[in-house]
Amino acid sequence: MVPHLITALTGPINELEQRVLDSMPAIERWFRLEWMEHTPPFYSSVDIRNAGFKLAPVDTNLYPGGWHNLTPEMLPLAVQAAMAAIEKICPEAKNLLLIPENQTRNTFYLSNLGQLRRIFHMAGLNVRIGSISPDIKQNTTVELPNGESVTLEPVQRIKGRLGLKHFDPCTILLNNDLAAGIPGILEDLHEQYLLPPLHAGWSVRRKSRHFQSYEEVSKRFGKLLGVDPWLINPMFGQCGRVDLSQDTGLDCLRSNVDGLLTKIRRKYKEYGIPEKPFVVVKADDSSGGMGIITVRDVKALDALKLKHQDDAPRVSEVIIQEGVLTYERMHDAVAEPVVYMMDRYVVGGFYRIHAERGADENLNAPGSSFVPLAFEQSTHLPQPGVKPGASAPNRFYMYGVIGRLAMLAASYELEATDPNAEAYA
Amino acid sequence: MVPHLITALTGPINELEQRVLDSMPAIERWFRLEWMEHTPPFYSSVDIRNAGFKLAPVDTNLYPGGWHNLTPEMLPLAVQAAMAAIEKICPEAKNLLLIPENQTRNTFYLSNLGQLRRIFHMAGLNVRIGSISPDIKQNTTVELPNGESVTLEPVQRIKGRLGLKHFDPCTILLNNDLAAGIPGILEDLHEQYLLPPLHAGWSVRRKSRHFQSYEEVSKRFGKLLGVDPWLINPMFGQCGRVDLSQDTGLDCLRSNVDGLLTKIRRKYKEYGIPEKPFVVVKADDSSGGMGIITVRDVKALDALKLKHQDDAPRVSEVIIQEGVLTYERMHDAVAEPVVYMMDRYVVGGFYRIHAERGADENLNAPGSSFVPLAFEQSTHLPQPGVKPGASAPNRFYMYGVIGRLAMLAASYELEATDPNAEAYA
Repeated sequence: MVPHLITALTGPINELEQRVLDSMPAIERWFRLEWMEHTPPFYSSVDIRNAGFKLAPVDTNLYPGGWHNLTPEMLPLAVQAAMAAIEKICPEAKNLLLIPENQTRNTFYLSNLGQLRRIFHMAGLNVRIGSISPDIKQNTTVELPNGESVTLEPVQRIKGRLGLKHFDPCTILLNNDLAAGIPGILEDLHEQYLLPPLHAGWSVRRKSRHFQSYEEVSKRFGKLLGVDPWLINPMFGQCGRVDLSQDTGLDCLRSNVDGLLTKIRRKYKEYGIPEKPFVVVKADDSSGGMGIITVRDVKALDALKLKHQDDAPRVSEVIIQEGVLTYERMHDAVAEPVVYMMDRYVVGGFYRIHAERGADENLNAPGSSFVPLAFEQSTHLPQPGVKPGASAPNRFYMYGVIGRLAMLAASYELEATDPNAEAYA
Repeated sequence: MVPHLITALTGPINELEQRVLDSMPAIERWFRLEWMEHTPPFYSSVDIRNAGFKLAPVDTNLYPGGWHNLTPEMLPLAVQAAMAAIEKICPEAKNLLLIPENQTRNTFYLSNLGQLRRIFHMAGLNVRIGSISPDIKQNTTVELPNGESVTLEPVQRIKGRLGLKHFDPCTILLNNDLAAGIPGILEDLHEQYLLPPLHAGWSVRRKSRHFQSYEEVSKRFGKLLGVDPWLINPMFGQCGRVDLSQDTGLDCLRSNVDGLLTKIRRKYKEYGIPEKPFVVVKADDSSGGMGIITVRDVKALDALKLKHQDDAPRVSEVIIQEGVLTYERMHDAVAEPVVYMMDRYVVGGFYRIHAERGADENLNAPGSSFVPLAFEQSTHLPQPGVKPGASAPNRFYMYGVIGRLAMLAASYELEATDPNAEAYA
């Protein structure tokens, strides 16, 4: 099922699509050479926004949930990619311990766990799910809407190893973004493979660091294709730690927002884009406290100060990012594509849609729903020769390329933040 | 579309299927460890026969044709596997030269070329087709039934490199089994990747060598699963060079046929199988001269001598192989599964069916046709817990395992026959 793409038939994005398709062999070779030098994240998902005149990633998740939203047709690709990933990292693996988020009652999330368990079981591993939640003191089985069930077992830490009762895994797969910090029970597991590494968690990651890497990637990719990197790169600024209740913090925010809006305005003028620029202000470490704020005018920041709630954390690390409209629609609801990757392979994706949000708003919010993309005949199956914008597979191939660029940026980012980096030097 | 499997609901094959499913993580791990030590063939296809009481490969092709018989759903898996293969062998590759058989007028074969071109193009390579046939003196474009076209271009050898006019490939992919010998134009291409290597061609390969490797593989696999390797291994004997017009040659053949029939009879007795044993006699090097002869009684060999045609080559290297019935049927036609692999991955398959052949006859003959298997949700997607024999995905997973065992045997075989082996030691 392919949504009607408002942007499908017109706009500068079609030029980009044409350029991407024409350069397909060069692009694939470029990725191959990059993966010789850099290690892809174990798995990832990337939220993409297509503004018609620009196509950019806005969020790169290194502990992706939502695997159950992929269609059954995408499953074999995910299994094959999981085989490749396991083979490369830990070919001798027998047992895999999957460590989920602590949301033990959310059936959507538990369906995601069921799907991950299926993928890695089919890749040839014994998979069990070990919860690090203090609420899970004994085996807890939850029925899923599809009739299957998921059993969460309490983890056991025995000296240097993490496991379950009668289950000693050689590999531990985190599906927990560690936003609340790295729990002690996961530290110093030197005898087991811990995937992804702990520094991929949000207690260490910063969005600004990721988009700094992405900017570097987009410049090199833009050079390869001969296109302005801005067409795929959301500009950003940062303020470090900002106390939103103090004027001093707001000053930095104000000047960054102002500067970024000016830069966007200049770009819009260059390309003749009749839209009103906006930026989004959000926590650099993805902590939920301040939410995601859309700002079209620097004056709105004063209101923001007044609106600031007393119970929210007053001090945040903040990133100010160029807002990217999404012009894709499905049944009148605003839609944005999400691309899923395992190892270096795009294995699927879906549209996140939200009927009550606008084209300039965050869709990853309560009320959103998901429509699988025909990614399985997409990211791998571009159709050369078809008119730009007219071919869903060609459009999806481009999304897969952007998703992989963000994944590559995450790879750079993880290298730069690796606490054990010296050990390899 | 899944054919009705006569063997699906009963018979010892279900025990094997159950054992294979129960051991899935062990099997996948075993393959992973094998591929750490051995290099899979670049691509391969394996003909499998399911006799209900026994399941065995009967032919392993290292230059597989028939890629166009795979369904569109299987294409993304093939593309992803091709990406993995290219990345491992020649990540810097830009241009791929595909060298086909010299059958320049067979549209089925040309459709196969079109499909291979599509797969490797989508994996990110510039693909062109270079013929080594003396008939191709200029670019020759042939329309395919699906509306596409294939252009065969004459190859050019310039010093140490093979290419086309204005096309210098770093990688050459052979889809020509070299049964007629290795042409000089393909020798000493030390500057380019030649895939598969020349010693994978039928001028060097011997079926007896392959099945000797397969016997070794099946013994180790049987041990892993705790099953009699005979359940997956066709026994064989060989005579070296036999002159079918002379009594001396026939003597060796006669004693081998007799000995093999006795061994099969013993196995049939052990398992209570009420079938009449038979063997097949065929050229060890796959040369077409003598065809494939089914022998149920050693006396039939005398008739064979008389029937021998004057224009056929009188001297052949011969392999005598245990005949494996195929009990699978589709619309009353005898069917046998063919499994396709790229690198170490099963990417698809189909049933070869032949309405005019018997369960003990070779189906790879004029008049055969092809029905795609639902392999895409099959070899990767076994359904644990389903009653043995009742699940097509479980059956196909088992076929994929047998296919990979034969591929592993081919890997052993290529190591043993590698003329440059010393250079690596």
